[in-house]
Amino acid sequence: MNELELIARLTKSLPTNAGVLVGAGDDCAVLELGVPGKLLLFKTDAIVEGVHFAGDAPPEKIGHKALGRCLSDIAAMAGTPAAALVTLGLPPKFDVKFVEAIYGGMSALAEKYHVAIAGGETTMNPERIFISIALLGTVARGKQVLRSGAKAGDAIFVTGELGGSLAGKHLEFEPRLVEARWLAEHFPLHAMIDLSDGLAGDLQHLLKASGVGAELLKTAVPVSRAAKLRMQTSSPPKPAFTAALTDGEDFELLFTVAGGNAVKLLDAWKGKFPRLKLSCIGKIVVGKGVTIRDKSGVTTLNTHGYVHFT
Amino acid sequence: MNELELIARLTKSLPTNAGVLVGAGDDCAVLELGVPGKLLLFKTDAIVEGVHFAGDAPPEKIGHKALGRCLSDIAAMAGTPAAALVTLGLPPKFDVKFVEAIYGGMSALAEKYHVAIAGGETTMNPERIFISIALLGTVARGKQVLRSGAKAGDAIFVTGELGGSLAGKHLEFEPRLVEARWLAEHFPLHAMIDLSDGLAGDLQHLLKASGVGAELLKTAVPVSRAAKLRMQTSSPPKPAFTAALTDGEDFELLFTVAGGNAVKLLDAWKGKFPRLKLSCIGKIVVGKGVTIRDKSGVTTLNTHGYVHFT
Repeated sequence: MNELELIARLTKSLPTNAGVLVGAGDDCAVLELGVPGKLLLFKTDAIVEGVHFAGDAPPEKIGHKALGRCLSDIAAMAGTPAAALVTLGLPPKFDVKFVEAIYGGMSALAEKYHVAIAGGETTMNPERIFISIALLGTVARGKQVLRSGAKAGDAIFVTGELGGSLAGKHLEFEPRLVEARWLAEHFPLHAMIDLSDGLAGDLQHLLKASGVGAELLKTAVPVSRAAKLRMQTSSPPKPAFTAALTDGEDFELLFTVAGGNAVKLLDAWKGKFPRLKLSCIGKIVVGKGVTIRDKSGVTTLNTHGYVHFT
Repeated sequence: MNELELIARLTKSLPTNAGVLVGAGDDCAVLELGVPGKLLLFKTDAIVEGVHFAGDAPPEKIGHKALGRCLSDIAAMAGTPAAALVTLGLPPKFDVKFVEAIYGGMSALAEKYHVAIAGGETTMNPERIFISIALLGTVARGKQVLRSGAKAGDAIFVTGELGGSLAGKHLEFEPRLVEARWLAEHFPLHAMIDLSDGLAGDLQHLLKASGVGAELLKTAVPVSRAAKLRMQTSSPPKPAFTAALTDGEDFELLFTVAGGNAVKLLDAWKGKFPRLKLSCIGKIVVGKGVTIRDKSGVTTLNTHGYVHFT
């Protein structure tokens, strides 16, 4: 049983209540707890030594990644983060300075986005460091962007460049909070998700939630320099386009808007964020699954994103 | 460096913002996010296989414990839980039915207290199961009970009976949500904490936060049957009173009220909760630390509660 099948089984019949507007299955849970004009966003995410980061990774970057992943999920709902709690599992013989530096990396990122670290929990995890972050944020009521709103005819956009994140970006990425809020304020976004499992996997999450399919234009997918370098150095070689589709942890935004808004959005984006690439990579179609168009024709995408258990 | 020293170092200068009324150092963080008449309570807690539960413990009880610990912290602030997220670290070869039964135990407890499980996260933790729960709750503004409000002259109360939790109660305890809310509605509670590290440790957390000391009456401390049984069977034997002071995971409430309210509170409690013992175990005094009075005189308490790293 892989991770996605397990999650599907575990979340089939969870207890709920009137406060939960969106539960398991989106980037964050969306809660109605009576804040005038606002909904709450609630998210947890964990990173584990040897799985999400090497034991000799710079500790500040480990902390940055731990919090950054959760911030990226708040961004994917067009929300604003407010407060985080940190659960830290540590082996019995831990290096205090290393742990403090993890907190230093988290704190620096938290301060940048005005997020409080309001406490947490320390416990024993004998073999490796385990960091779980719980994050609470808000979003203006009606401005939350779910995975489920994509419609046939929508243009599909992605920020930044994709693939090869393991070369460094996975520890240093910038959560797209500012960009996501600007997008939601200026354009009616139909659906959004952050790219954590890879474009192929995350696009399919969005399509499944929306009940639609997608057609991508191969030449429009922004392939990162790291993905191209990786093609030359990895063994067996992974084509750069495949890396852009299937490497996880890009933490870029994938979103859709009505096709008629596409050009206006691209123009406005270039004026607002001249240093961050935005690419229209294809369109939403009736049906399901993903096809990729290039000069030789149309092929069906079979590859998936990253899963923890296979 | 032990756990408490580590936490003190890590929480010394955490980033904060205007929404955080109480950060690290109490049972829950207390947040002001604009809910009319209410504050939010935010908590995370984790349990780890081989540390907080044996690998062959009944999975429903593991789930019960994971969520119950967080609910107990919400109780300690006199709050009402609303929604939980579950972060689950699993070894690559996990037993699906076992994991589903963990969720079953969590879900049953969640339903009992009308708590939603609004999603979460599944990841790899190669050697052992790691369950972290994030919980969001509310409390009527002004009714939150902190650790820091105890005053000299207060009577100190504890619910239930203490010690020997490892014999079974640590997997089956009932979070004292109903009792805590009733107490806060009917009496001005000065300070409250739930007993997770043991009476000796948790009382000292409360005293330190309040800047006061305590004098306990030895014969008034409710020693559980499990603690007495343990005295006969464990090797080397641990006196039952010591177990009641230092065994962790009782998950009972420890709270203080003005001395003048003590008798009225005990009477009202007996009428409302006839099946749950409530004991007045001593009083808050000027100074610091804990002394214990018995027929042979007064001694100073040197023992501490449970810490993960020593």
